[in-house]
Amino acid sequence: MKSLNIGMIGYGFMAKAHSNAYLTVNNFFKLNHRPVLKAVCARNEEAVRAFADTWGYESVETDWRKLVARDDIDAIDVCVPNNLHKEIAIAAATAGKMILCEKPIAMNAAEGEEMCAAVEKAGVPNIVWYNYRRVPAVTHAKNIVDSGNLGRIFHYRANFLQDWTIAEDLPQGGNALWRLDVKAAGSGVTGDLLAHCIDTAIWLNGGIKDVSAMTETFVKQRMHTETGKVEEVGIDDACAFLCHFNNGSLGLFESTRYARGHKALYTFEINGEHASIRWDLHDLHRLEYFDHRVEGPMRGWRSIHVSDSDHPYMSNWWVPGLNIGYEHSFVHQVADFIKGIESGQPAAPTFRDALETQKVCDAVLESGKSRCWVDVP
Amino acid sequence: MKSLNIGMIGYGFMAKAHSNAYLTVNNFFKLNHRPVLKAVCARNEEAVRAFADTWGYESVETDWRKLVARDDIDAIDVCVPNNLHKEIAIAAATAGKMILCEKPIAMNAAEGEEMCAAVEKAGVPNIVWYNYRRVPAVTHAKNIVDSGNLGRIFHYRANFLQDWTIAEDLPQGGNALWRLDVKAAGSGVTGDLLAHCIDTAIWLNGGIKDVSAMTETFVKQRMHTETGKVEEVGIDDACAFLCHFNNGSLGLFESTRYARGHKALYTFEINGEHASIRWDLHDLHRLEYFDHRVEGPMRGWRSIHVSDSDHPYMSNWWVPGLNIGYEHSFVHQVADFIKGIESGQPAAPTFRDALETQKVCDAVLESGKSRCWVDVP
Amino acid sequence: MKSLNIGMIGYGFMAKAHSNAYLTVNNFFKLNHRPVLKAVCARNEEAVRAFADTWGYESVETDWRKLVARDDIDAIDVCVPNNLHKEIAIAAATAGKMILCEKPIAMNAAEGEEMCAAVEKAGVPNIVWYNYRRVPAVTHAKNIVDSGNLGRIFHYRANFLQDWTIAEDLPQGGNALWRLDVKAAGSGVTGDLLAHCIDTAIWLNGGIKDVSAMTETFVKQRMHTETGKVEEVGIDDACAFLCHFNNGSLGLFESTRYARGHKALYTFEINGEHASIRWDLHDLHRLEYFDHRVEGPMRGWRSIHVSDSDHPYMSNWWVPGLNIGYEHSFVHQVADFIKGIESGQPAAPTFRDALETQKVCDAVLESGKSRCWVDVP
Amino acid sequence: MKSLNIGMIGYGFMAKAHSNAYLTVNNFFKLNHRPVLKAVCARNEEAVRAFADTWGYESVETDWRKLVARDDIDAIDVCVPNNLHKEIAIAAATAGKMILCEKPIAMNAAEGEEMCAAVEKAGVPNIVWYNYRRVPAVTHAKNIVDSGNLGRIFHYRANFLQDWTIAEDLPQGGNALWRLDVKAAGSGVTGDLLAHCIDTAIWLNGGIKDVSAMTETFVKQRMHTETGKVEEVGIDDACAFLCHFNNGSLGLFESTRYARGHKALYTFEINGEHASIRWDLHDLHRLEYFDHRVEGPMRGWRSIHVSDSDHPYMSNWWVPGLNIGYEHSFVHQVADFIKGIESGQPAAPTFRDALETQKVCDAVLESGKSRCWVDVP
Repeated sequence: MKSLNIGMIGYGFMAKAHSNAYLTVNNFFKLNHRPVLKAVCARNEEAVRAFADTWGYESVETDWRKLVARDDIDAIDVCVPNNLHKEIAIAAATAGKMILCEKPIAMNAAEGEEMCAAVEKAGVPNIVWYNYRRVPAVTHAKNIVDSGNLGRIFHYRANFLQDWTIAEDLPQGGNALWRLDVKAAGSGVTGDLLAHCIDTAIWLNGGIKDVSAMTETFVKQRMHTETGKVEEVGIDDACAFLCHFNNGSLGLFESTRYARGHKALYTFEINGEHASIRWDLHDLHRLEYFDHRVEGPMRGWRSIHVSDSDHPYMSNWWVPGLNIGYEHSFVHQVADFIKGIESGQPAAPTFRDALETQKVCDAVLESGKSRCWVDVP
Repeated sequence: MKSLNIGMIGYGFMAKAHSNAYLTVNNFFKLNHRPVLKAVCARNEEAVRAFADTWGYESVETDWRKLVARDDIDAIDVCVPNNLHKEIAIAAATAGKMILCEKPIAMNAAEGEEMCAAVEKAGVPNIVWYNYRRVPAVTHAKNIVDSGNLGRIFHYRANFLQDWTIAEDLPQGGNALWRLDVKAAGSGVTGDLLAHCIDTAIWLNGGIKDVSAMTETFVKQRMHTETGKVEEVGIDDACAFLCHFNNGSLGLFESTRYARGHKALYTFEINGEHASIRWDLHDLHRLEYFDHRVEGPMRGWRSIHVSDSDHPYMSNWWVPGLNIGYEHSFVHQVADFIKGIESGQPAAPTFRDALETQKVCDAVLESGKSRCWVDVP
Repeated sequence: MKSLNIGMIGYGFMAKAHSNAYLTVNNFFKLNHRPVLKAVCARNEEAVRAFADTWGYESVETDWRKLVARDDIDAIDVCVPNNLHKEIAIAAATAGKMILCEKPIAMNAAEGEEMCAAVEKAGVPNIVWYNYRRVPAVTHAKNIVDSGNLGRIFHYRANFLQDWTIAEDLPQGGNALWRLDVKAAGSGVTGDLLAHCIDTAIWLNGGIKDVSAMTETFVKQRMHTETGKVEEVGIDDACAFLCHFNNGSLGLFESTRYARGHKALYTFEINGEHASIRWDLHDLHRLEYFDHRVEGPMRGWRSIHVSDSDHPYMSNWWVPGLNIGYEHSFVHQVADFIKGIESGQPAAPTFRDALETQKVCDAVLESGKSRCWVDVP
Repeated sequence: MKSLNIGMIGYGFMAKAHSNAYLTVNNFFKLNHRPVLKAVCARNEEAVRAFADTWGYESVETDWRKLVARDDIDAIDVCVPNNLHKEIAIAAATAGKMILCEKPIAMNAAEGEEMCAAVEKAGVPNIVWYNYRRVPAVTHAKNIVDSGNLGRIFHYRANFLQDWTIAEDLPQGGNALWRLDVKAAGSGVTGDLLAHCIDTAIWLNGGIKDVSAMTETFVKQRMHTETGKVEEVGIDDACAFLCHFNNGSLGLFESTRYARGHKALYTFEINGEHASIRWDLHDLHRLEYFDHRVEGPMRGWRSIHVSDSDHPYMSNWWVPGLNIGYEHSFVHQVADFIKGIESGQPAAPTFRDALETQKVCDAVLESGKSRCWVDVP
């Protein structure tokens, strides 16, 4: 068993999910590498030290450049706001580190291009944390699509609905609220939520050709936690777009943080000539499937409880009928990333894959402003 | 087109449902007979006249014996409390009338035997209004069972849960509340609700061998509307029973009017070696089906929206996806009853069929008292 | 009881639904008028005579002008393809007849304007058959919205998904298939299905300001039943659009006949500051409701089984828990139309109301072609 | 941070779930003790060594008596077939070890009594792994019940349905299949599955007074893996029972391994005067709640997605909308067990609590044989 020494940057929600995955993966997956929590880095020393204690990180750093320079680190995990991704990732690549970067890859596609160039030049393994690909039901959907069972595809629709920013007195900036600050996040729901929908969509249904979007900022001004002043809100609170896929199917996407009653309703549906599939993160262990080739009176939407040993990843966990949850998608990503290192077949989505999603996000934001259809480059 | 002259006895909820069925059936089903609302009968002249006006009955009677004696009546429809079924049905049979009798057939099996003897001696067409057999999804379930697709049957379970008698100040007796009066109803949920469950069960899964029951009366005394006095409640408010079917499968039945949140939750489920079926009256247009012969990763409970033209009865109604409701089960029963007359193949359940259900009800009530297993004769 | 003499034009699916409503309404609703099926009209004499026999129409006509001219007709019901609405409706109005017209009101808003002018000049009662407003759950949604319970509205989304035209060998034109023929229908899913979504949306959420649409014709050529030749398909097989409502909320609409697995999935959802509502035609008796003002740990989407006597229209039907279906929405519309005549408060949607929907449809189709945002006039 | 040195006996499915809980608990819960995987014990040395490697146990034993005798062990975790519980638990108690014992507590209540006596005499912390109490939705149900919100309770029903033993060629005995061998398991579904249902029921609804049961063995003979011979099957394949609770409510329980389509359908429902609750393990993150005190037209079953920070245990995990799964119930039990040690308020269910469940199981099995109602002692 070889060690894979992790240098984590950040100590927020995502750092927690990733740390859990590193600690857990070898208990459930047969691998030749074991992730070791070597160091965690953040500017706030007290906070990062507490995080290190909880999770068992061997050391802490308060300057990410030092972390990147350490010889005992194999892989850098980037769990910081989007505006810091590029600089860190390029430095890590230059230092020859593997990189596991939170999504979206960057503030925009131009930054993403630079990052791709850096990791490809350095030849370091790289991956972006679009974790929902590895919810077993979603992976199962991918397998069904790849089997060709659906026939010609007519429609793809997805949405990601939340309701946590409706209160007008919620501030922007600082800790968990950097997602409301356009300087840190680059965009609102587009980069945060639609990026997930787009990543899955491209994976399942291929590239997107053009888009027509509508964006909205419902709460125009919010207190900024760093300045203490009420400032303009620069992010998109909601975004919906129409699109054409390269395969001729039509796409419809929507995301918002103002859909009362939905905490994290990420759903997608794909309609093919012969069969359709749909999924919802709120019940992430179920995949809905409709097969028109079934004899007429017996046709219906089938709710597949994705918990059997012949379902993706599930033989590593419990027994049929017993659910796993959100965090396991990260465990699967770590397992696949390590298998990718071991096999030489890199696990997706690489930086290059994630760049495609970023290009769509850029086009969506542009279309939201121009009120015109925009081609995805 | 021949007439089928109907003489209705009663003007309550069931009389309304049946009258609607008589008026509607020829608009949707091709038949050689058309029901004609010839007369309606009840002791309360004012009420029955109002009912006749609403529904277009040609005449009214206040003495059912006169109705039964009329030459212009072909069929008697018995929509009165259970304690009156026997006398009316026997008189009607003796007068050579066809009989459509509300369920349960009688106060007990002994009465039911007399009624069977009468109709069989008279050779008159007869049927009991176990209408749920003819909800399309339930008929579809019957077809699936009869196809043998389920393999050996292991389990049958059904319940009928309501919540409308929880209030202690609800009286017993009189109009709609005769169902709480043991003298009129014979029993509580057993004859009212479990009888439906048992009828469907015998139809789908064959005869019942023995039963072990538990009955309860939660509210022991209620004001009686006829006496104006608080009187003992003689009915069973709730009843559950275990049983063995003749085919070796196990049965579990429950009914109550004290299940808060359930208005009319009639569900059944049948588990076979290869496949299972379940249904719920609250969503009566859906049939749930699980087929284990589907390849492993694609197995799931399938929700069949029973609204296609190749589903039972549905080609007579609208187009796929558009629901019919409760009342249509009565229309189907009238259609089938008429087809039975025309073809000489009587529609079920006949009095004889309904007697089997009554025998199980009797055994259940006896077991509830004796706290012992009771064989169904 | 006064008569309301109906002159029906057409004998297809909608004529069947309306005829059933006319025959049934007085059995369940207290009204001072009783619809009388006086005459039905269609060019195919044999077919129209068979229809008259089934439904009990007193007479038949083969020329609608004759029907419109008859003195014994009070109201004309227009159940013919869209390209015939205008001429018939204007003639009927000129003849002083009430008009109940199938939806969409016309081929386009220009025609609709002429029709509005005609009925308003003539002062005749008029209504368009946007029947889904009167599904009890939908009416209940309207009542909840009108109560102000939802607070500021952020989002409205609706779709109407079907799958019946996927087969490429399905022809266009003739009988039920006129909906695929642009000359008879004017448009495809936009006028047929989205029109329903838009009507409900405007009713629930107010006017629509501007739209950006995407339309698609998946099957480009189909045999035409009238010419026997393969011809270009002129209709939109699928259409999706983004929009802004006048109240500042965002709208997202989609319709298609290529969504495998959906027979008639008409859903809408409205997200307000305090509460959200959603509904689905496939389970039309249920309304989903989420109320954020409930104490935190007890919050959840509530499935309201709209079958109680305090739900809209339901006191006229059965008892709690027992469903009504699709056809009842038409009965309700007839009941309300008659009440409107009796009270002098016309039932909606009038021609003028339906014109608003038509304007949105026109804008959607224009945007689909121009690939630009289009203002709704 | 103090160590809590664990000595695990067994290396099967449950040992895996418990080990994961020990390793994970401190990452998510603030505690003063950290479980340390000190030793794991099983007769098969090769297998137990592999298990130790995977999970990081510091040492292995092949004789549980040696493990129990070790000074460096604080707590013994009993993950072996039921027929071994008693001897091990008593020895561990005598040695002054804390005990975490798999359920059911023993082969029967007599054994359980001895075990209770032993732990109580020794004064050692003890708990039984009825883990489902600590699924957040189930704990939430307990809180709602304890609030008194339900009013007088009328009904409790539960079932636990599986389908994994339908194949007749499935053998009995050996590894995972000891559950089919009556000598190792003591009973079939009663001790394995109904025991869970009964534990939850007593916890939520109080003690059970008497029972009437029906048991069945569908497959009468199976190959035994230890003898290689076809032997009689001694377990109950299915069991259903009626009961009275001490609070006057009626109970209905069912369990089977022959319900095709159900992998692990553990559901319960409780109906009170004012409100009802239901839950299903297949969607373990949801709690269904019906509150009759809501104004009439707005009443409905509410699906509470138990993933908010004000839901039990959930503030320790992710953010609203993101599910946890089956394994987390064990983490919660470890957290609570440790808190119990630290606070001196022992976490339930203790051996004494679990004995109550065992008494009901014994009565159920006795009633299944005698076909009579049996009082629970």
